[in-house]
Amino acid sequence: MMRFTADVRSQAKSLALVPTMGALHEGHLSLVRQAKEECNVAVVSIFVNPTQFGPSEDFARYPRSPEKDLEILEILEVEAVFAPSSREIYPPVCTTSVDPGHIATVFEGAKRPGHFRGVATVVLKLFNIVRPDVAFFGQKDFQQAVVIRRLVEDLNLPVRIALCPIVREADGLAKSSRNVYLNAEDRKAALVLSRSLKRAEELARAGEGDAEKLLEEMRKTFDEEPRAQLDYTAIVNPTTLEPVAQVNPGSVALVAARLGTVRLIDNLIFGPPGSTPELRLQLALGA
Amino acid sequence: MMRFTADVRSQAKSLALVPTMGALHEGHLSLVRQAKEECNVAVVSIFVNPTQFGPSEDFARYPRSPEKDLEILEILEVEAVFAPSSREIYPPVCTTSVDPGHIATVFEGAKRPGHFRGVATVVLKLFNIVRPDVAFFGQKDFQQAVVIRRLVEDLNLPVRIALCPIVREADGLAKSSRNVYLNAEDRKAALVLSRSLKRAEELARAGEGDAEKLLEEMRKTFDEEPRAQLDYTAIVNPTTLEPVAQVNPGSVALVAARLGTVRLIDNLIFGPPGSTPELRLQLALGA
Repeated sequence: MMRFTADVRSQAKSLALVPTMGALHEGHLSLVRQAKEECNVAVVSIFVNPTQFGPSEDFARYPRSPEKDLEILEILEVEAVFAPSSREIYPPVCTTSVDPGHIATVFEGAKRPGHFRGVATVVLKLFNIVRPDVAFFGQKDFQQAVVIRRLVEDLNLPVRIALCPIVREADGLAKSSRNVYLNAEDRKAALVLSRSLKRAEELARAGEGDAEKLLEEMRKTFDEEPRAQLDYTAIVNPTTLEPVAQVNPGSVALVAARLGTVRLIDNLIFGPPGSTPELRLQLALGA
Repeated sequence: MMRFTADVRSQAKSLALVPTMGALHEGHLSLVRQAKEECNVAVVSIFVNPTQFGPSEDFARYPRSPEKDLEILEILEVEAVFAPSSREIYPPVCTTSVDPGHIATVFEGAKRPGHFRGVATVVLKLFNIVRPDVAFFGQKDFQQAVVIRRLVEDLNLPVRIALCPIVREADGLAKSSRNVYLNAEDRKAALVLSRSLKRAEELARAGEGDAEKLLEEMRKTFDEEPRAQLDYTAIVNPTTLEPVAQVNPGSVALVAARLGTVRLIDNLIFGPPGSTPELRLQLALGA
């Protein structure tokens, strides 16, 4: 991989990295398309990173579809795929990790201790191996995006982070590799996440700016769906992830819930009526 | 600094970084000379890194001599000096840090909690800002060198770490910016560190390979110097820093002691009789 990067660099071409854990869906593909559009050369990494899974989480059964992934990436004319082994990324002697600090201890970080340490560490390693000019992440994992942006700023990394909007199923469910876990009933019930966000947006559009009122409505939406267990919902500042009292353009509503054993997350960036997802991302993170 | 680096890179010149906390002495100068010899362009950073000092340590009174340092570096014909402010390195929003893991929790890490986290974080930041091909560190801070080498390997950093042997005063005291703290009597008493290491080396040369026997002799040397308080002494594997039972070429004797409020460290790499310091470094770390 490092030789590939050196070749690209020697030709003064811009290099994009799309880090993934495989099991590619339309969300990933939108990242790849954006990467191809912005850079001359696009690298997609596929690595199911063990260090970002907790001991009781779904590392072993996380969906893997390497052949299908490679076919898709070939069709998309990606220049290189980097699919290292666990041993290559984490030799047994490895002790160093990246600690994102307090932003990694709330929300997903509170529910999944060590998750963002694992994410930040593997992303830094991938950056150092591939050395991209731009790296592409999805808005769906909003807190992850915040952690990665902090990583880049705090550690002075010479890479730009580009974020792409959430891609949804026709009925509104955010695309996720974990959606395949859902049985038919839970698949239907899972719509409560996007429905609660939509409800908050409607209220905000109607002039309600009090975050607590919006959260109340979101929780009510969940009350109407007994199959779903709400983990958390919050409306936060997009940089600090601190809860806000008043919703502003760029504020973000986060939601996480469980359907049976399947944990799903979703989010919404508030913006002016009719604003595009891209504008909202820009409002939130200047991305 | 990043523009300077880009210029150097565009000329395909090799770039050296010598990270220092200023208060330059002969030890630093040997690093700079080596850097100039191995690379086309040498950058010296001067930054008294607050995050590697504990709350009760000597950050505020750490020796600072910026004018003298710059004079010295001009005489040595260093191409650039990078002397950032604390705010430049650690903006208030900064939360991310590097955790070197268990090797940072023993010896100096046990006595100075958080020290190596601070060191690893600032060194990674300096690497990302300056982007050197080679970075130069002194053997005197042996555990630091081990932490930095792990950092580079574990995080796949595209930089080579070069180590330079300890530079000593005529009487054997390892050069250190902190030596200026010593009053006349403690300055004399401080020789107990190098004397204890010399004693261990003599015994090893005479055929004693039992680490515990050597350590006993080192401790005895300290018993004879009541002004010095031994913090720790150990003979370790140079990669893992785990204590060894049997001394081999490349094993390292570490020693730390206090003279009044001044804390000093020193070390010795065991090697074949008559072996140069450079060969010993190579035996220990392949540097």
